[in-house]
Amino acid sequence: MNSNNSKQNKTDHIVTFIGDSDHKTSINTFSNFEILNKNNYQKDDYSIGGAVSILENTFADILGKEDAMFFPTGTLANHLAIRKLCGTKQNVVVQEQSHIYHDSGDSLSRLSGIKLTPLGKNKSYFTLKELENYLHELNNTRAHNPVGAVSLESPVRRKYGQIVPFKHLESISNYCKSKSIPIHMDGARLFIMSAITKIDIKAYSQMFDSVYISLYKYFGSPFGAILAGDKNLIDGLHHDRRMFGGSMHSANIAAIATLNGVEEFQKKFKHSISNSKELLIKLNTLPQLNIETIENGSNVYLVKLDSDINLQSFIKNLENKSILLNQDEIQSNKIRLNINVTVLNQSVTKIFDSFKEAISQSR
Amino acid sequence: MNSNNSKQNKTDHIVTFIGDSDHKTSINTFSNFEILNKNNYQKDDYSIGGAVSILENTFADILGKEDAMFFPTGTLANHLAIRKLCGTKQNVVVQEQSHIYHDSGDSLSRLSGIKLTPLGKNKSYFTLKELENYLHELNNTRAHNPVGAVSLESPVRRKYGQIVPFKHLESISNYCKSKSIPIHMDGARLFIMSAITKIDIKAYSQMFDSVYISLYKYFGSPFGAILAGDKNLIDGLHHDRRMFGGSMHSANIAAIATLNGVEEFQKKFKHSISNSKELLIKLNTLPQLNIETIENGSNVYLVKLDSDINLQSFIKNLENKSILLNQDEIQSNKIRLNINVTVLNQSVTKIFDSFKEAISQSR
Repeated sequence: MNSNNSKQNKTDHIVTFIGDSDHKTSINTFSNFEILNKNNYQKDDYSIGGAVSILENTFADILGKEDAMFFPTGTLANHLAIRKLCGTKQNVVVQEQSHIYHDSGDSLSRLSGIKLTPLGKNKSYFTLKELENYLHELNNTRAHNPVGAVSLESPVRRKYGQIVPFKHLESISNYCKSKSIPIHMDGARLFIMSAITKIDIKAYSQMFDSVYISLYKYFGSPFGAILAGDKNLIDGLHHDRRMFGGSMHSANIAAIATLNGVEEFQKKFKHSISNSKELLIKLNTLPQLNIETIENGSNVYLVKLDSDINLQSFIKNLENKSILLNQDEIQSNKIRLNINVTVLNQSVTKIFDSFKEAISQSR
Repeated sequence: MNSNNSKQNKTDHIVTFIGDSDHKTSINTFSNFEILNKNNYQKDDYSIGGAVSILENTFADILGKEDAMFFPTGTLANHLAIRKLCGTKQNVVVQEQSHIYHDSGDSLSRLSGIKLTPLGKNKSYFTLKELENYLHELNNTRAHNPVGAVSLESPVRRKYGQIVPFKHLESISNYCKSKSIPIHMDGARLFIMSAITKIDIKAYSQMFDSVYISLYKYFGSPFGAILAGDKNLIDGLHHDRRMFGGSMHSANIAAIATLNGVEEFQKKFKHSISNSKELLIKLNTLPQLNIETIENGSNVYLVKLDSDINLQSFIKNLENKSILLNQDEIQSNKIRLNINVTVLNQSVTKIFDSFKEAISQSR
């Protein structure tokens, strides 16, 4: 027991504002694997059965869906959900700023012959009017390729984790239902969104025919994704998973890590949010620093420092105090803060004092 | 150190004739992860860099190729190799009994528009004459779809691990080179084949433009595959890997486990082969038992027991002596023996005595 505590202590004092998860590497995770696997779950058979089944049932329950399936990546979970939902209607409406549209190598078009129609250029979401207009336009085409599915991502990674407002999701979902168009949710960070909006996970998931959740972004799994939906959607999907090369061996290690991680996340994340709110209010009292509030934001904040503060030495000085952060990739004159459970690793006062000290050290 | 030894002792006395790897589950592997990661390799970034680069370079070296890339599954490694090798000539010749032809959900046809032409029906390989005849036939087609690549699997899993003779691989390879047709090797179990034929790994790999190797079947990795080839083949292939949903997070855990496993396999497997030969000769002296030699066999043997021996109780009795085996899936009146490194976990005499005892207990 002591030896495991000492392992954990290596990183347990670090507060990181980089990414959505704690600082533990997967190697730390696996050093504690015997403890993680306290329930002695069984092995899977190429991602089928054993601990993987327990994971799938657990997430089907949490999301209020009939069934669920494990995937090695979110890219594949999104792909196979949309591929099955749209069937032969190979035209799918997505946000122009979505991960599916920009960061999957046009996989749906190239591998499944599905056209992605991007709406809401440069915005975190498209309006109902835009969707209605597009469907209307389609009526005037000579060879009709009707919309077979709509996909919505929220929070939107490319837009600083902006949340699509619940009311808006509801209106799109209702419209799709009225038109019998299936609707998929890229909910990689759904659990973060739900903790922030205080709207129940199931209130979100019930609006969608299928929901994808990431397992490694904040549950501490080394990799993996879950896709949940009704029995009809999930049934037989393991054949497609294998066809794509996604039926990996020993998926149980992701399942076991996740089953522990979900509990820990749900225990800790709400507390992290309230602590970070307190911290951000305090930080904003510092005259050299301005925290920008992102409209419909989730757990991402941008910080503008006075121009006489050297950004690189500010980052370095905080690192010396076990606080990790980075410049924003796009707006490189600003610091990006991602709130995650590591904010609990130091007291609000201690983090605040470190920021204050780092400012005076970095002029 | 003691606590790790005690972990290993849980399974280190077990001899299993099921599968190509030792009995350690991935959970055992990860209980020892800190020891495995003695070199403190760095994390990858979605399967790029860190320990994964070291793995890729190591296998490029072993296989005598310019470069290599990690994949989560062999299915994907085979697919992307063939997809790139054949380019716009979307017709690929494979063995009819190959994994690619039967066990990948027709992925090449359905996802990449590549026709697989199966030759050598029900045999472990096709002849050079069959390949020549097929190419000749193609000349008479109105819309020519020329052969863009040839793929060869050896050992052939569906044919009890039968090895395609070296001379034959050589003749096919030379023919393909003379016709400028790229040639891929599904060498999932290449290291087993090389240990059995005593022909160097590189002597095999140099005949092929690309070679896929499994990482979990006998190297103790929880999952994963390597594809090796020239720079031109591997360059940029990570984009396709991501498109297919194969750029998983934390591939370093497979890389680290494999880097240890390769060393261990190369130390132990030759010895396992010689011990098992001694064992099989002794077993064949028992009048109630007949070991069938498979033509061009690798590490798989079929055992026919006298009809008055109850197969189920024979299996059960050996299990009580920490020896695991199963009936063959197809010829269910026979026992299947896969030779792997666990044969070293007990002395030849002890295993022999257990078989003898189990026979008399199972009448």
